[in-house]
Parts: sequence; structure tokens; C-alpha cells
Amino acid sequence: MSFTVSEIASALKAEVFGAGDIAITGASEPASAGPDDLALAMDPKYAEGLSQGSARAAILWDGADWQALGLEAAIVAPRPRYAMSGLTALMDPGPEIAPGVHASAVIDPSAVIGGGAAIGPFVVVGAGVSVGSGARIASHVSIGEDSTIGEDALIHAGVRIGARVSIGDRFICQPGAVIGADGFSFVTPEKSRVEEARASLGVDTQTVNASWTRIHSIGTVKIGDDVEIGANATIDRGTIRATTIGSRTKLDNLVHLGHNVTVGEDTLLCGQVGIAGSTKIGNRVVLGGQVGVSDNIFVGDDVVAGGATKIMSKVPAGRVMLGYPAMKMEQYIEAGKNWRRLPRLMDDVKALKKAVLSDDKDD
Amino acid sequence: MSFTVSEIASALKAEVFGAGDIAITGASEPASAGPDDLALAMDPKYAEGLSQGSARAAILWDGADWQALGLEAAIVAPRPRYAMSGLTALMDPGPEIAPGVHASAVIDPSAVIGGGAAIGPFVVVGAGVSVGSGARIASHVSIGEDSTIGEDALIHAGVRIGARVSIGDRFICQPGAVIGADGFSFVTPEKSRVEEARASLGVDTQTVNASWTRIHSIGTVKIGDDVEIGANATIDRGTIRATTIGSRTKLDNLVHLGHNVTVGEDTLLCGQVGIAGSTKIGNRVVLGGQVGVSDNIFVGDDVVAGGATKIMSKVPAGRVMLGYPAMKMEQYIEAGKNWRRLPRLMDDVKALKKAVLSDDKDD
Amino acid sequence: MSFTVSEIASALKAEVFGAGDIAITGASEPASAGPDDLALAMDPKYAEGLSQGSARAAILWDGADWQALGLEAAIVAPRPRYAMSGLTALMDPGPEIAPGVHASAVIDPSAVIGGGAAIGPFVVVGAGVSVGSGARIASHVSIGEDSTIGEDALIHAGVRIGARVSIGDRFICQPGAVIGADGFSFVTPEKSRVEEARASLGVDTQTVNASWTRIHSIGTVKIGDDVEIGANATIDRGTIRATTIGSRTKLDNLVHLGHNVTVGEDTLLCGQVGIAGSTKIGNRVVLGGQVGVSDNIFVGDDVVAGGATKIMSKVPAGRVMLGYPAMKMEQYIEAGKNWRRLPRLMDDVKALKKAVLSDDKDD
Repeated sequence: MSFTVSEIASALKAEVFGAGDIAITGASEPASAGPDDLALAMDPKYAEGLSQGSARAAILWDGADWQALGLEAAIVAPRPRYAMSGLTALMDPGPEIAPGVHASAVIDPSAVIGGGAAIGPFVVVGAGVSVGSGARIASHVSIGEDSTIGEDALIHAGVRIGARVSIGDRFICQPGAVIGADGFSFVTPEKSRVEEARASLGVDTQTVNASWTRIHSIGTVKIGDDVEIGANATIDRGTIRATTIGSRTKLDNLVHLGHNVTVGEDTLLCGQVGIAGSTKIGNRVVLGGQVGVSDNIFVGDDVVAGGATKIMSKVPAGRVMLGYPAMKMEQYIEAGKNWRRLPRLMDDVKALKKAVLSDDKDD
Repeated sequence: MSFTVSEIASALKAEVFGAGDIAITGASEPASAGPDDLALAMDPKYAEGLSQGSARAAILWDGADWQALGLEAAIVAPRPRYAMSGLTALMDPGPEIAPGVHASAVIDPSAVIGGGAAIGPFVVVGAGVSVGSGARIASHVSIGEDSTIGEDALIHAGVRIGARVSIGDRFICQPGAVIGADGFSFVTPEKSRVEEARASLGVDTQTVNASWTRIHSIGTVKIGDDVEIGANATIDRGTIRATTIGSRTKLDNLVHLGHNVTVGEDTLLCGQVGIAGSTKIGNRVVLGGQVGVSDNIFVGDDVVAGGATKIMSKVPAGRVMLGYPAMKMEQYIEAGKNWRRLPRLMDDVKALKKAVLSDDKDD
Repeated sequence: MSFTVSEIASALKAEVFGAGDIAITGASEPASAGPDDLALAMDPKYAEGLSQGSARAAILWDGADWQALGLEAAIVAPRPRYAMSGLTALMDPGPEIAPGVHASAVIDPSAVIGGGAAIGPFVVVGAGVSVGSGARIASHVSIGEDSTIGEDALIHAGVRIGARVSIGDRFICQPGAVIGADGFSFVTPEKSRVEEARASLGVDTQTVNASWTRIHSIGTVKIGDDVEIGANATIDRGTIRATTIGSRTKLDNLVHLGHNVTVGEDTLLCGQVGIAGSTKIGNRVVLGGQVGVSDNIFVGDDVVAGGATKIMSKVPAGRVMLGYPAMKMEQYIEAGKNWRRLPRLMDDVKALKKAVLSDDKDD
């Protein structure tokens, strides 16, 4: 894989300076760059690294003097982080999956695989499955009966897609993800101890649970276009309706979506986020790593929650949240300060009691 | 798959009204129901949905007027959530696994597979394994040497069962679960920094750790009857004895059980719960999503813990817990209110100091 | 597998008493030990168990009177937990993987597999891969193109290793782990709502996010010697540079490492720990179960964090941490006590107001 500096600049819609015809074969941090690498020095703090490495060309911060930095060519990007998207897309070789269907794959005769597909060893595709054109499916993937996957999917090794799941175009799925497991839904013949504890907030909980009876998940999972699912993430099917993920939403590794959950469009769920059953997450929401959301609640559009926030009740649109239980971020930060001020407050009250009350016996 | 309304009512032990001979081929939310679907309208709030959909038959809330709702037939269930268990069990087609053993499966000649088994492509069954009759084992599953699985198991794709694991009847295992990984157990030649920090609660921690030496897990995993394990959950084997899960207990997706953990009967562990090594969880316990339990402690029978509770010390039987660290739920809720009252308390103390103390220099 | 008591004592560098020639075929807790088991009774509390079981030989606590306990032979270990490492290593049969390469495995002709390898059914090894001598690779594992794995690896079933990953000697990997998934890195053309919320700590967040553009992960993963990775753990590749794990570091089940993370040497990350992108964890660090660490921060050498600690800013070397947000453990414990003292403090302030202020209208 080789591109000229000018080709890269053009892909990034960025300005090029100097010898645009230098051939680039990789990208690198400045200090470890070789002569054919493009050094990524998008901040002045990388200037020193450039002199340690041997890059001839670099992407530089706005206003950098490329010649003074000893470079032969430079690209200047106004929003460096955004330029990274174009650059890395250009340079990503993607996984090697040989064109065509590997001889070992077990494809049901009733399945329809679109043109240009690459299907790896030990893949299993069930009856009635439809996979769009341009699909790349790595080894050990299984796709259950009657599922539909759009065009240009990239499904990494060991992904499990259950029966009757529907997925849009340009789907990316990291290794080991499970889409369409059964929901975790159990019921007792009479009202359970949990129902009682929730109703009374723990005050009155007398019932002893009987054994649990399973509610089967006969619903499915529906996923929009341009969705990405992280490694070993798990998405349960709905009980009757579908668990749904809107277009352009991305889930990180080890994220868990319970049954009947609805996630909107353009939303990001970071590593190890868990959403309990029947909860609805809006559009353009961002939940940081390890965030948890209780069941049967609603998180509005444009909500942002910091790492490990535990959302236990409805959050209106637009809120920025933090903490356990979740509060507005500014409130949580203020509350944390007050918590640290408590020892002094206690001393103050002690002194006041001494000054005011004749018998300070309650020390 | 098709059932008459009367057959369904009979399976649910519920009352039927109207044309019990209508044939039903699926279940649906009321608004999206077609003419052959049974609409699930177990609460008056669904009345409007019924008029939007085209269901002829529905399961209704107690006291509903089925004729006024424009239906031809109706089933009335006294505890609707419980009725769902019967209904969904009836309608769940389950995964398609062809009867018999797939030609690609690698079954050790010494393994014993019970009658009526369905074993999918690329399954690996080790030496001395015993699988009971009626087993359905989906693609890509591996079962280690000398493991035993009872009758009527349903093991979904990509499950990993290690060596010498023992599992009872009617086992259900969602995709990607790992049962019988090695425990996470490491030791230093001398007392470690962690042992010191725990003993002194962080006050006195001088030791610098040497490298870690592995304690191998030569114990196993023992699982009772009617247990279900969620997708990508992980259950470690014991060090010497077995990690155990009691009968009728259910684990959700991404749950982690450390080595030597004992979980009782009829217990529910929700998504992403983690139980550290050698801890004992009682019977009929319910731990909400993302709950964590420290190692070497005991959680009594009938304990209920809300989402993300972090249990760091012993919990007596019957408690309802919440928070980090875990408190009684009612205490935690009260403490949270007090936390929010702190700013006013601080203002009060400031005013008192001004009123009482001549030199208010400590503001 | 059979060892004499003397052979075991010698492996543990421990003292032996009595009939050292008794043949031992397993290890057991005292109460359930059979006559050929070595009972593990390293604490006086196990004395009673010894009389319930039928062990002839035991490992005993320092100072125990083995003859009075009715034993024929005994081993005394000064640090019992450390002795466990030697004993269990001796008795661990390891997984059964037949020598040689299973006929069903798909090994690219350009891959180099070292001598003495055992490769199980349905393994896929990509082009240019190098696996050192003595490797044991269980069923269903996939290894991407140009990856390198050192000598004496033990890779359990269903592990996914991506392309261009580099791993040292004596690597142990539990089932289902994913090494080298793509990082979770997305960017908007203009500054995003998240960037704004972080800069203002939630106070000023007006932007509505555009859709997310993917930053591809063209970096890799580099892992040192003697590393162990837990079941279903996920380790993302770096964006440009490598995500790295130092030698002798151990990761438990369901641990998540984001892109560009650096973990030092001799570090332990317990179950369900999550480390967000570009964060650096030092040497000899121990993070308890469910700990979370924010992105782009630094956790110093020898830091210990208790279970579920949420580390949201830099932690200097040597600190012992607990809580959300993380504090010094002793501070957190003190703060928790103060929290529980709040109700009395509030009563005190109320009484003071009554005593001091004429108009107590603000009750």
C-alpha cells in the first residue's frame, strides 16, 4: 500500500506543502517514524519527536513551519482529530478474508449471499438468510435462520448472530459479539420479592420468592445502517417486539443491551455500558464507559453521561450527567466538594455547640 | 406453527371468550398485530393500540370488555406477566439445529451422546464426555474432556465448556459463554502489597510487590438442574473444590463468577454482575445489573440488591441493598437526600457562626 | 498422575514428615479427601475436616501435630498460599489437545509453527503468522495475518487474535478472549458535544452532535512474556501505535483495554476492569474487580485500587484508592463514616438554630 503525500492531502481535504510526490507506506508517531512513514505531529508538543524520528513528511498543526522542522513535505489539517479519520481509513488494510466462500463453510442452500462476498473458514449460515453484496465474513461466524444483513458488511471472527435478526448496510461487527441472545426475563406465579422491594424502595419486603419461570424471547433484533458493534458485546432479542439500534450508532466492547431496549441514531455507548430491559435511549446520546441504565426508563436525546454514571430514573433531553445515582454533572461535582468539606463542618458545629449550649454532653 | 385461541388459553390456564377456534400464528404488540396474531394487551393502556392494529384475538387485562374492543376472541389472564411465560414458551420455535450429529463435528469416540441429540457443525466434544438425551448443541460449541451434561440441554453457538465440568438437566446456555476457565489466582513469595493494603485499609502500605506466581485451578464447576447462563458470561473453575451454581438459578449476559464461588438455588444474577473469588451467594437472591460482590464474603438468602450495588462486606439474609458501598436501600435513599441538603446546612452553619462567634475569621 | 508425598514436598521446597512414600493422585479439601488425596489443611480451622475425611497425608499449618491429627504423612509449608502455586502446578493436567495439527485446522502455508505444537480442530492461522515451539492451541482459535506468538503458549478454545499482534513467551489465554479488535474511536467534523461537556464540566453544553466518523485502528497490540489474559476479555489495537501489556501482567475475565492503552509489568487487572483509551497503567499495579479508569490519564506504579473504584484523574505512584470518584482509601472510609453521621449533624444544627436565632422560620 503506497500513497503520495498529495494523494493523502487530497483525501483529507487538507493543504499540502513541499514535495507532494513522496511515497508514503505507513503512518507513525513522530519519534518512531521511518523515512517512508507519514509522521502524525498535529500538536506543537510533537516537534521534538520529529527531530528524533526520520520522517520526511508529516501532518502538522495549523501554523507550523514545516521547513524549520526539517521536513521535505507537510500536510496541514485544521481539525487534526478529524483528519485522522480520513488518514486511517486510507491506510487500514482490513482483515484478510479470501474472496469467495471458503470450502469449509456450511451455507444452507436456501441462503442468499450477495455478489463479491468473502466468507472465511468454518462459517455457518442458516436457512433463509440473506447477506448483501460485498460482505466480508471472517472465520467461525454463525448466522441464524432467516436473518438479513445489508450490503458491505464486515463481520469479524466468531460473531454470533441469532435467528430472524435484521441488520442494515455497512455493518461492522468486532469479534465475539452476540446479537440475538434470549432476553433475561423470568417471572414468579405470584408477585415477587423484587417487585415488592421496588414498590416500597426496600422498606417492606416480606415475600419469599418462588422459583422462576422463563419468559421466552420470541421477538428479534433490528439494527439500522452504518452501525458498529464491539468485541464480545451482547444484544438480546426482544420478548415480542424487536430490540432496536438506530442508524449510525456505535457500541463498544462488552456492551450489554437487554431485551426490548431501543437505542436511537448517532449514539455512542462506550466500553462495558449496560442497558437493562425495555429502556429507551435517544438520538445523539453518549454514555461513557461502564455506565449503567436501569430498566424501563427513558434517556432523552443528546444526553451525555460521564464514565460509570448509574442512571436510575428518567433523564430529560440534553442533560450532562455523572455519578451514582446519576445527577447533573455540575451538581455532582459540587456535591463531591461538599463531601470533602464535611470534616470542617463537623468541627464548626462542635465548636458552636460548645459556645451555645451549656451542657455539651452529646459529643 | 399455529394454535387456536382455545389451545393457547388452555396452555395458560386462562379463561377464553368468543371464537376460540381462530387460528393464531404469532404474538404481537396490539398496534402492529396482523389478523392472525394474538395481540398482547394486558393493560388498559393498550386499548388504543388494539384499534390501530388488526388483531382478531387478544390477551386482555382482567375486566376488559372484549366485544367493545372490537375483538372476535379474547383470553383473560389474572397475572399477565406470568401468562407471558406460557405464551412465549408455546410460540418459541427455538434455534434450528438439524437432528443427529453434523458431519463436520469432532466427537471423541469415548464420548457418550444421549438419544435424540442434535449437534451442529464444527462442534468439538472431548474424551469421556457424557451428554444426556435430547441435547441440542448449536454450531462451534466445545466441551472439554470428562464433562457431564444432563438431559434436554440447549447450548447455543460458540459456548466453551472446559474439562471435568458437571451440569444438570434442562441446561440453557446462551452464545459465547465460558464455563470452566482457569481462576484468577496469583501469589507472591512474601506478603503482597494488596494483602497489606487490605489489612490496614490503605493506611500502611509499604511493600513493593514481587512478580506473581500462578495458582492453577485444578478444581471444577458444578451446575444444578434448570440453570440458564447468559451470553459471553464467564464462570471460573475452583482451585481445589468446585465453583457451584444451584438448581434453577439464572445468570444474565456478561456475568462473571470467580473461582470457588458458590451460588445458591433460585437466584438471579442480572447483566454484568461480578462475584469475586470464594464468595458465597445464598438462595433466592436477586442481584441487579452491574452489581459487584467482593471476594470471600457471604450474601445471605433472599437478599435483593439494586443495580450497580457494590457489596464489600457480609450481607445478612433478607436485606434489600443499594449503593457503593452497599447499604440498606432505605438508608441509602435517605443518605442521598441528606447529601443534597448539604449546601443549605453549610449556609446555616455559616449564619450561626456569624451570630455566635465574635471573630468569624474561619470563613 | 501420581506423586509421592516426598516428591510433592520437594517441589514445594517444604518439610516432609512421616511416610513420604505414600502415592498421591489428587488434592482435596480435608473433609472430602479420599485416602489417595493430599488434604489441604493449611489453617487450624481445618483440623476438624481432617477427621471427617479419609486423607492419609496433608499439607498442614506451621506447628501442627500431624500425628495427633491421625495422619501417616504431612508436609508443612511456611507460606501456605504460596505453596498452593507449586502444588496446583504439579497437579494440573491442563487441557487435552492432541499433539500435532488437527486435520481440520486451516493453516496458511506461509505460517510458521514451532516444534512440538498441538493445534486443535477448526483452528485458523493466517498468512505470515509465527507461533513458537511448544504451543498448545485449542479448538476454534483464530490468529490473524502476520501475528507472532512466542514459545510455550497455551491458547484456550475460541480465542480471537487479530492481525499483526505480537505476543511474548509462555502466553496463557483463556477461552473467548479477543486481542486486537478495532478501537472505539469516532470523531465529528466540528467540536462535539462531548468535548464541550468535558471542557466545561457539564456547565456549558450547547452543541448538537453531527454523525460520527470512524477513526480506523491501524496500530497493533504488543504483549510481553508470561502474560495471562482472562476469558472473554477484549483488548483493542492502537490507532497508530500499539496497545501494550508488559511482561508478567495478568488480566482477568471480561477485562476491557481500549485503544493505545499501556499497561506496565507485574500488574493485575481483576474481573471486569475497564481501561479507556490512551491511558497508561504503571508497573506492579493491582486494580480490583469492576474498577474503571478514564481515558488519557496515568495511574502510577504500585497503585492499588479496591473493587469498583472509578479512577477519573491521575493517580500518583504508590496510592491505595477506593470509591467513585476514586479517593485515597483511608479518606474514602472516613468520608463514608461522615456521611452516616449526617443525620445527627443536621439535628444538631436544627437545635442550634432554635437556641440562637429568634425566628427559626427556615425549618
